[in-house]
Formats: sequence, C-alpha cells, structure tokens
Amino acid sequence: MTVRIGVIGTGMIGEDHAKRISQTLTGGKIVAVTDVNPDQARAVVDRLNLDAQIYDNGHDLIKADNVDAVLVTSWGPTHEEYVLSALAAGKYVFCEKPLAHTADGCKRIVDAEVAGGKRLVQVGFMRRYDSGYLLLKNAIDKGQIGEALMLHCAHRNPSVPESYITPMAIYDTLIHELDVFRWLLDDDFKTAQVVFPRKSRYSHSQLADPQIVLLETVKGVRIDVEIFVNCQYGYDIQCSVVGEEGVINLPEPESLLMRKQAQLSNAILMDWKKRFVAAFDVELQMFIDGVAKDSITGPTSWDGYAAAVASDVCVLAQTSGQIEPIEMPEQPAFYR
Amino acid sequence: MTVRIGVIGTGMIGEDHAKRISQTLTGGKIVAVTDVNPDQARAVVDRLNLDAQIYDNGHDLIKADNVDAVLVTSWGPTHEEYVLSALAAGKYVFCEKPLAHTADGCKRIVDAEVAGGKRLVQVGFMRRYDSGYLLLKNAIDKGQIGEALMLHCAHRNPSVPESYITPMAIYDTLIHELDVFRWLLDDDFKTAQVVFPRKSRYSHSQLADPQIVLLETVKGVRIDVEIFVNCQYGYDIQCSVVGEEGVINLPEPESLLMRKQAQLSNAILMDWKKRFVAAFDVELQMFIDGVAKDSITGPTSWDGYAAAVASDVCVLAQTSGQIEPIEMPEQPAFYR
Amino acid sequence: MTVRIGVIGTGMIGEDHAKRISQTLTGGKIVAVTDVNPDQARAVVDRLNLDAQIYDNGHDLIKADNVDAVLVTSWGPTHEEYVLSALAAGKYVFCEKPLAHTADGCKRIVDAEVAGGKRLVQVGFMRRYDSGYLLLKNAIDKGQIGEALMLHCAHRNPSVPESYITPMAIYDTLIHELDVFRWLLDDDFKTAQVVFPRKSRYSHSQLADPQIVLLETVKGVRIDVEIFVNCQYGYDIQCSVVGEEGVINLPEPESLLMRKQAQLSNAILMDWKKRFVAAFDVELQMFIDGVAKDSITGPTSWDGYAAAVASDVCVLAQTSGQIEPIEMPEQPAFYR
Amino acid sequence: MTVRIGVIGTGMIGEDHAKRISQTLTGGKIVAVTDVNPDQARAVVDRLNLDAQIYDNGHDLIKADNVDAVLVTSWGPTHEEYVLSALAAGKYVFCEKPLAHTADGCKRIVDAEVAGGKRLVQVGFMRRYDSGYLLLKNAIDKGQIGEALMLHCAHRNPSVPESYITPMAIYDTLIHELDVFRWLLDDDFKTAQVVFPRKSRYSHSQLADPQIVLLETVKGVRIDVEIFVNCQYGYDIQCSVVGEEGVINLPEPESLLMRKQAQLSNAILMDWKKRFVAAFDVELQMFIDGVAKDSITGPTSWDGYAAAVASDVCVLAQTSGQIEPIEMPEQPAFYR
Repeated sequence: MTVRIGVIGTGMIGEDHAKRISQTLTGGKIVAVTDVNPDQARAVVDRLNLDAQIYDNGHDLIKADNVDAVLVTSWGPTHEEYVLSALAAGKYVFCEKPLAHTADGCKRIVDAEVAGGKRLVQVGFMRRYDSGYLLLKNAIDKGQIGEALMLHCAHRNPSVPESYITPMAIYDTLIHELDVFRWLLDDDFKTAQVVFPRKSRYSHSQLADPQIVLLETVKGVRIDVEIFVNCQYGYDIQCSVVGEEGVINLPEPESLLMRKQAQLSNAILMDWKKRFVAAFDVELQMFIDGVAKDSITGPTSWDGYAAAVASDVCVLAQTSGQIEPIEMPEQPAFYR
Repeated sequence: MTVRIGVIGTGMIGEDHAKRISQTLTGGKIVAVTDVNPDQARAVVDRLNLDAQIYDNGHDLIKADNVDAVLVTSWGPTHEEYVLSALAAGKYVFCEKPLAHTADGCKRIVDAEVAGGKRLVQVGFMRRYDSGYLLLKNAIDKGQIGEALMLHCAHRNPSVPESYITPMAIYDTLIHELDVFRWLLDDDFKTAQVVFPRKSRYSHSQLADPQIVLLETVKGVRIDVEIFVNCQYGYDIQCSVVGEEGVINLPEPESLLMRKQAQLSNAILMDWKKRFVAAFDVELQMFIDGVAKDSITGPTSWDGYAAAVASDVCVLAQTSGQIEPIEMPEQPAFYR
Repeated sequence: MTVRIGVIGTGMIGEDHAKRISQTLTGGKIVAVTDVNPDQARAVVDRLNLDAQIYDNGHDLIKADNVDAVLVTSWGPTHEEYVLSALAAGKYVFCEKPLAHTADGCKRIVDAEVAGGKRLVQVGFMRRYDSGYLLLKNAIDKGQIGEALMLHCAHRNPSVPESYITPMAIYDTLIHELDVFRWLLDDDFKTAQVVFPRKSRYSHSQLADPQIVLLETVKGVRIDVEIFVNCQYGYDIQCSVVGEEGVINLPEPESLLMRKQAQLSNAILMDWKKRFVAAFDVELQMFIDGVAKDSITGPTSWDGYAAAVASDVCVLAQTSGQIEPIEMPEQPAFYR
Repeated sequence: MTVRIGVIGTGMIGEDHAKRISQTLTGGKIVAVTDVNPDQARAVVDRLNLDAQIYDNGHDLIKADNVDAVLVTSWGPTHEEYVLSALAAGKYVFCEKPLAHTADGCKRIVDAEVAGGKRLVQVGFMRRYDSGYLLLKNAIDKGQIGEALMLHCAHRNPSVPESYITPMAIYDTLIHELDVFRWLLDDDFKTAQVVFPRKSRYSHSQLADPQIVLLETVKGVRIDVEIFVNCQYGYDIQCSVVGEEGVINLPEPESLLMRKQAQLSNAILMDWKKRFVAAFDVELQMFIDGVAKDSITGPTSWDGYAAAVASDVCVLAQTSGQIEPIEMPEQPAFYR
C-alpha cells in the first residue's frame, strides 16, 4: 500500500519533506498540497514534478478522500487548528514542532486524540531518529554506564538574526532538547533554572546570549544545557551523559581528519540543516511505515505537550532568576 | 516508473539486496527470483513476502518480459554467463564482485557490452558509495591537499576460516581496494609488489597473514596496503591520503566516545557486514534510479576488468617476490 | 647559590617533595626535616639518603641558620602556625594546600605577610604549572577565543573512602579548581550554588555524590563543575572554556591510542598522583629558583585566602540550596 | 658528586645542551668549552653565564683534569676524532648523531671502546627518551599487542632548504628512525628498499621528495617509513605498531582541542626543535646520572654503528631501486 499524503504549508521545511517523500523515501506519495501562498504551493508542485492537487486551504485538503495522512508544516501558530482538523477527520497527521503555539493548545490536541481513542499524531522531534542519539539511548537502556545521573549539553549556532530574542532560545532552540531528554532518560522534568553568563559581543540588543538552562528530572537527573546561538564557530550539538559507571558522548558528525596548515582538524558544520538530514529521513519513513501498518510509534502529542509545558517554565525562569517547578499532569494511560 | 528487478542467486547477499530493494529503497520491485537451490529461492520469497515469480534458471529469468533489470548475486564463477546473457537480452544488470572469475572473462563482458553499444552493467563495488570515501574523493578532487602522492591503507578482519588461503587476500579481500583506489585517484595501476611480514600466530597453515601490497600508479602515486585478516581486534578499513599540502584520513565509523573502566574508547566493528550497510543502500538506489532514467553511472564492466587484471598481477607478485608490471589495454572511449 | 630547604612534615607529600628536590630538580638541597613522628622523619632521611638534620619541631627547624626556605607539608590544621612562624623568621615558605584550616587563618597569614612587607609565601596550587592548563591560559590571554564566557568542568575520582564526607568535595577536592579558575580568568568569584543529582549507588551514607557547583565570577563568567568522586572509571579532570569565538578543552594526559579487542582506546589514569607529577616538579623548581633570586612568583597567600573564602561559601551553599554571595575584601596592592 | 662537563662545539645544539645542563638539569656543571670559532665559544659562556674555561681545541679540553665527561656537538665530520680522543683519555663522552661520518668511522670507535674494556660512549639518539616512544616500547615489551609484525611510520617536515639533497633524507632524517626501530623491536635490519612516489611540486631539483623506505628486520618485522620533508603542514612524526592482537600509535604532542572557525582542531608543531625538547632533557640527565654512578646506559657506539650501516644501505637502495641486504657483523658481547 502506498500512503497518500497531503502537505499543509510548502515553505522550506514543507518542500524539504515533500522532496524526501517523493525522491528518497519509500511507500509514500504526495497527492495534495496547500499553502497560504498559492503560488508557493504551485511552485513546489512544479519543482518536484509532483502529481498532486493544490488545495485552497488545509481543511479541504484534510477532508479529501484520497489523502491518507497529513503533514503540517505551516506557520507555527496555525498548527493546532490543522492537527485538530485531522483528528476530527480521523486521519494520521505528522506535525512539525511546535505541536501548538501554547501548552494549552497542545493539551487540546491531547484531549481530542484521547477522546478519539486512536493514536493519530506524530510530532516532528527528529532527534530521536538521529543515529548518535540512538547510540546514547541504547547504551543508557542497556545499563552500560549504570544509572544516568547528569547530562552536560550544548546547543550552539554560528549566529542568529536580530529578530531572534531571548525567549526564542527556549521555545525555538531548546525545544528539541526538552523532548530528547525526556526520551533519552524516560523521565519528566521537575524544576528549571536559567542563568546568564556575561553576554557575547556578538549578541544583539534584545538577546541575552549565551544562557545556561539547569533542569532537574523527577528521577533526580541534573541537566545543564548551554544555549549559545552566536558562537561564531559552527552548529554544534553536544550531549554528554554521566552515569554511575561511565560517561558517554554524542558522536561528532562524520568528517575527514585532515592534517593541513599546522592543524590536525575535523570540519564542524556551519549549517544546522545538514546536521539532522538523515534523522529527518528516518523520522518520515517511520511515519509512512506506521501509517501503512495503521500503527504509528513516533513522538506523541503528549510529548509535544510535555515539551511545551517545560518550555513555558524555562521562559518564566529566564526572567524570575529562580528555581521554578515544572508541574505536569499525570500522563494518560493512552500514551504509555 | 517502478523498476522491475529479477534476482539471480538468493544466498546471503542476494537476500540482503532483495530485502533492501523491497523494504528500504524506493523505485524498485522484486518481480522474479531464481537460485541453484529452488527451496532457497522459495524461502526468500516467503520471508520477504515478495510478489515475485520463481524461475528454474537465470537465463529464463533474464528473458522474462516483466524483468527490467537483473541482479547477479549467484556463486562467483557463474557471474560471467549471467551478465553475458543479460547483455544479449539488452537488460540492465547489477553484478556483485567479481564481475567474472578471470580477467579474460571480464574482458569478454567488456567486449560484449561495447559491441552492444550501450552501458548496461554495474559492478558491485560499494565503497564508492560510502560517505567516508566520498569525503576523501571530494577533498582530493577539490585539490584540498594538492596532488595526491601516497596512500597508506589497511584492510583488517578479526579472523578468517581455514579455507581462506593466501591468494584470497588479493582476489577476495584486496579486490575492493583495487577498485576504490582507481576511482579515488582517477588513475590506473602500473606495478605491484607483495611483501610478507612475519606470520601472526593466529594465521593458518595455508595462509601467510599479514601481507603488504605495494602498488604504483601510472601517475606515480605509491600505495601501501596492509592486509591482515586475523588481526583479532576488529574489522578495520584504513585509508590515509598524503598530498602535497596535507593528509586526509578515512573517517572511523560512527560510535560513542565512552569513558569507562580506565579507558576512553570508541567501539570498533567486529562484523564486516555492518561496515558498508549504508553504502549498499546508496549503491542499489543509484542503480535503480539509473535504470529508471535509462542511464546508469556506477562502476562499469571496465572497472571490473581493471580490478581483475590488477588482482591477477598481485597474486603473481605474492609468489615471485618481484616488482611486477601491471599492463592494461587502453580504456575504450566507450567507458570514458 | 644552592637553596637550603627544611621540610616540616614528612608524610607522603612531604617525602615526595623531598625526593624531587634532591633527585629531580636543580638548585635546592634538603638540609633539615621534622615530623610529628620522629621515626618517620628518620626513615625519610634514610630512604632518600639525605644529608639533613632532624629537628624536634617545626619552629626550631624554621629558625635554623642554614635553612633558607621551608616546606610546610604537615597535617593541614598545623599549616597556619608554621607559615606564621616562617614569616616571623623572614624566611621563604612553600605551603601545601590548604594555606590554613580556615579563611580567618589564611587572613592572619596575609596580614602578617603584608605587615612584613615582603612576599615570602607560595601556596601549593600546582595546577597553575600543568602544561595543559598553561595552554588554556595562554589561549585565553591571547584572545584566541575572544572573551571567556563559560567554563564547563569536572573533577572525577574512581572512588573515595567512607571517611570522605560531603563538605570534603569542596575543601579537599574543589579547592584546586577554586584557585585555578581565578588564575585562568584573572577574576574573582561572586556567587556560588550547589545542586545534587541523584546519588550514585557507589556513594557512601555520609556523602552526596555527585554534586554540581555553579559559580559566577565578578566579570560574569559562569562556571559549572561536576564533582564526582566515586565515578569508578578513572581520575579525570575536565575543563572546557567557552569564549565568544571558540571553545578550548584541557588536553587529556598523554597515552597510546590502541586498537584492541573491538575498541579504539586511550588509557585513563586511575591514580590521581600521576596526573600532576610534572606540574609538581615545575612548581617546586620555580619556588627554588624564586628563592635563589630572592623573588618568588607562584600562588600567593592572598590566593590561598581567596580559595578558602570561596570554599567556605560553597560548603554553605551545599546545605542552603540557595545562590550564595561570595564576598571578598579588596585585594591589597601588595599582591598585585 | 657534580659531573664536570666539557663541551666541544658550541653551535645551536651545543649551546642548547650547555643551557639545559646549567639551567634545567641536576648534577652536572659546564667547566670547559671550545669551538672552531673562539668568539662563538666566548659568546655562549657569556650568554649562559658559565664558570667555564675556554679551550683552543677539543683535544686539550678532553685532557683537562677537571673534565669528567665530554659533549661532542661539533660539526659532524669531526665527531670521530673527538670521540676517539675521549676514549683514549678514558673519559665519558656524549656524542650527537652521527657518531662518525662513515660506518667505518663508527666501527673504529666501537673497536677502540671494546679494546678499552669500558663503556664510555653515549650517542645522541634522543627519541629513546621521548615519553611517547617509551609508551610504545613498554606496550610492546609487555606483549600488550602480541608480537610486533609491522611498523607504519612517517617523518614529515614542513620544508627543507635547497641544500638538502636526496641522500640526506636517509642520513640526516631517517637516521633517528633507524635507531629507534632497532631499540623498539630489539631487532636488527635485514634488507632495505626505497621507492619514490611522484615528486611534490614543493620539492627542489636535487631532491626526490617524498620517498618511502621499506625495511625488513631479522625477526621478519616489515617497516614502511614515509619521508616527506616538504609536506608544508607541519613537523609530524608518526609511528604505528601492528601486532598480532592490536595496533598502537605514537601519541600526538600535547595541544588544546579547539573549536573555532568551523574546525575542531589540534595544533601541529611546525618547528622540529620543539618536538623532542623533553626527550633531550631526559637523555642528558640520564647521561649525567650515569657518569656520576660510573655506569652509563644510553645508546651505545654499537647502536651508532648499526644505524650508520643501515643508513649506507638505504642510500644505496635509493639509486639501485632494488631490495638491498643489510649485513651487520655479530654484536660483540661487550654491548649486550
């Protein structure tokens, strides 16, 4: 069975996903697209040579008989309504982060999905599909380092535009870590604190950069994450897990070891889009395979909600300077 | 267009390829299989849940109307006849190494293909599709280290069975290097010499292990390859390219950096099958895509022939102890 | 001129220093020793074949005419009285950490030294002489990474005895970091906070292990130090400095890269005594050279005092759970 | 006892050694110097503030009553006569490489030393004292990788002047490897072969650069050494030992790991003088200690002779293109 997919939002990430589904992955076919800008939708259909109908709006696309599953890759604040619409239609939906613009919005999706009685939503937390994070998770789960006690992490970008302001370090950047930590540790967050080192000369007026987020989990794991989005030197994701018997590090992306000009060096990526390319492929292939088998397994709307709750508390902690509690309702049995 | 593929030989590698075509790659479909052991063919069809007809023999499979392209993954000495048969039928054929049991056999395939006037053969030299080798090639081609002057390489296996004898180090093991060096350097071999270090205690009576092959190319690049197939510690492929302005190394396969038990370590693979899994995927995807576009681009039958010629000279050099010339006929314009 | 040295306290570290002065370093000679246990002093004189007089007590040793400089390597709580005695006698004194048992004790030494008008005290903070830390300091001072913004550090031991209790993680273990950070950054501490991850199963009843100390400096640098003294796997000192334009890491101690048994590994030290052997040599050679030139340059009694003040606040922060201010009096011009 | 040392030849290396003896090492004192250029000798005495007599010639210096041991750091072709003169005077002599200008000259020294009945000569092969090579030797001797089977090595310099001609790659550059291999493996050479890759554009008209020397030892170990003295990128000494159960690599010199400008890098030395600074210290300290104990242990005149014999054969192999035998007389029991 080929999974017939409709894409809502054909901006950069939407076009990327449409391209990988039609050219790289197997088992899926783009049959419908829509975008707030119809010319943009048309251009993507042409560029990718898709045999796909162009819809006026997402809701019509969702309802189309020949659409088995929906990709929501539109502007963030519109995610909630399309995911709810897909749930109402009983269709599988892959939603890029954020699941919704607010934690409350996420909760409405969770409630609708639970009420519907069937898992239909997968959230685009692609790091869970990165080969390096999978090695970390496998080693933790096998007890190779005993119980995990601490995570030391960093999320660094070469630079960000002036429009990137302090809270975005949380809801735009840290959001991926907020999901991947829960998954890695099979745990939930308990408290958050944010501290601000001296500001880099490369930071902007509306941005305190770098910052350090300190998280505590229910099991007592302590996590520190440096967020440094004008670090100049590269896009660099670090994750070191300290366990009772050992320490493991997220692998560096593959590169040549080069001896040249008095340096023994490996290249560091400058472009974040290259870092998780393979993870995006696996993520969407798993979604397509899951839809084909009528049983999806990826990050749930509960995961999207949990990340949103933690994200909100971190933003609060940025301004309070205090250790802030993160209170999550109990996870419904539905998502276990 | 879906490329309809017939598989001749459903042993380990044949089944692997059938599996990746039907489950991982896109654009291809296994429609026909055959094996010298019909039960084996049947078992693979069942295990992979293929919608494929089982043929009594490879020649009938090749002639089948619904077969667009053929995979030859049968026992090595039978490769030549099936490839020639596919050429006679004007069908695309992907042939696992070796292209033929002898250099003469390879030459017969080259002649038949040239006579037919169309490139139809791709040889299974998968290293050209390995991401690490591609990084090496890209750096060389861009002149990042100036002209390449030397290659220092190693091909190590943890152990081999007693049936593995000295010449197999060349035609079974070195054969991949013989292809990949020509491709990396865009060059041909000129001489070969083999020297034997003291024998490892883990070697067998009919095997001189390790050995070192010294190659000289037409452009004057000097290559040393250590072949050590009872090295105990892992499956380890090393390739260091020394250029006029720098040195680059083939990356190690991805693994966690672990601090544990007084060691800072990365795992080394023990199983060769895991080393080039991703390269196999890319290789076959490129073949399928090429067939779909009626224009394939992978290693040619000339490449298979060139590797076979060099391989024969290396085996000769094992016993002569001399520097032996490698004489290649001029490459037909057809293959340029 | 040969510097004639008296050693007060011939336990492990005292004997080590006596040995390096008499056998490895140049320009110094052990002429006097004393120990609370006279047999121990005698045994060291015999073992090292020293031409040294054995004194009944430290004060007499300090006053001896042929003693140019004193090494205080006795039990920690006795350091203050011997250092004050050496100051009273106008003699150079090298004092192992801690300079005194309390911050107040350190302050009394500072006051006495300032009153005397001449720098006579060097404190045994040997990390300043470690080749790796010197590389870090040099890179920071040259601006190779822009201004330093954050330090991510770890101090790990394989295990500690049951007598090691929670505050010792600060005054026995972190004390070296507390000095080396001030020196690396040319900065002082402003606040301290301590957080406790879940406890390792290898920790003892009176020890919360691991713990994380969060420091803020006057310039705004943020430092996190993981202290993990039952980490099982090795003695491991990590220090990563994040600057505006790059990140630098303290080098790992030299070791062979070994491929063996499915691992690509470097050995990690298990014994802390081996980690800073070379630094101890340089530290004491610099002291001897300084005495010979009548001008010493190492860590001052002010440095010892500053580390003690920060240490006390960290111990307080262990129990308060709060962000605690670290208030240092202004540094006397004498020490600049 | 202080060892009183006379230095013959106060050029760069002579001054360096005089400086380390008087300023860094312990137990030695420079009491006499001479140089073919008396002003040069005078200048060094002044610069280093030595309490040393300046002699008209080496022979008078050797005979001086207050000279216990001699350092021969003069122009290479004069080494033999000074070493013989020291042997005639029954004095310890440390001779920089080469021991003599020819293998025959070395043999005359060996004969004189044996006739004298006492080991008096130490040759300046400092790599034996390098911490990295010592780690290699220790691992080999402990059998950590089983029996050594192969060595893959490189000796690279950024560049050499036009006066450096092809044979110098052997007698000036490879000479250190020729000694250190014998010592590492406790073995002697049996054959040598030299092959020439295509020449680097950075090479000179009288220099074939790079070149590869292939050595076979009596025990059957195979060694390949790349000599590349215009490699542009750094001074880089590589040595990888392949044993029956594992592979070990000479450590890289200590440096910071730096993340900056899209690179994860360690610095590579450009200046060979920095590479073995610590080894020079240990080497000379061991010589001084040996003289003080009347029993020296470093590289012998036999070692100097063996390296010279191998060096001559390698130079021959450069032009013959053949596998050339290396014939060593039996080592006298005196040197075992």
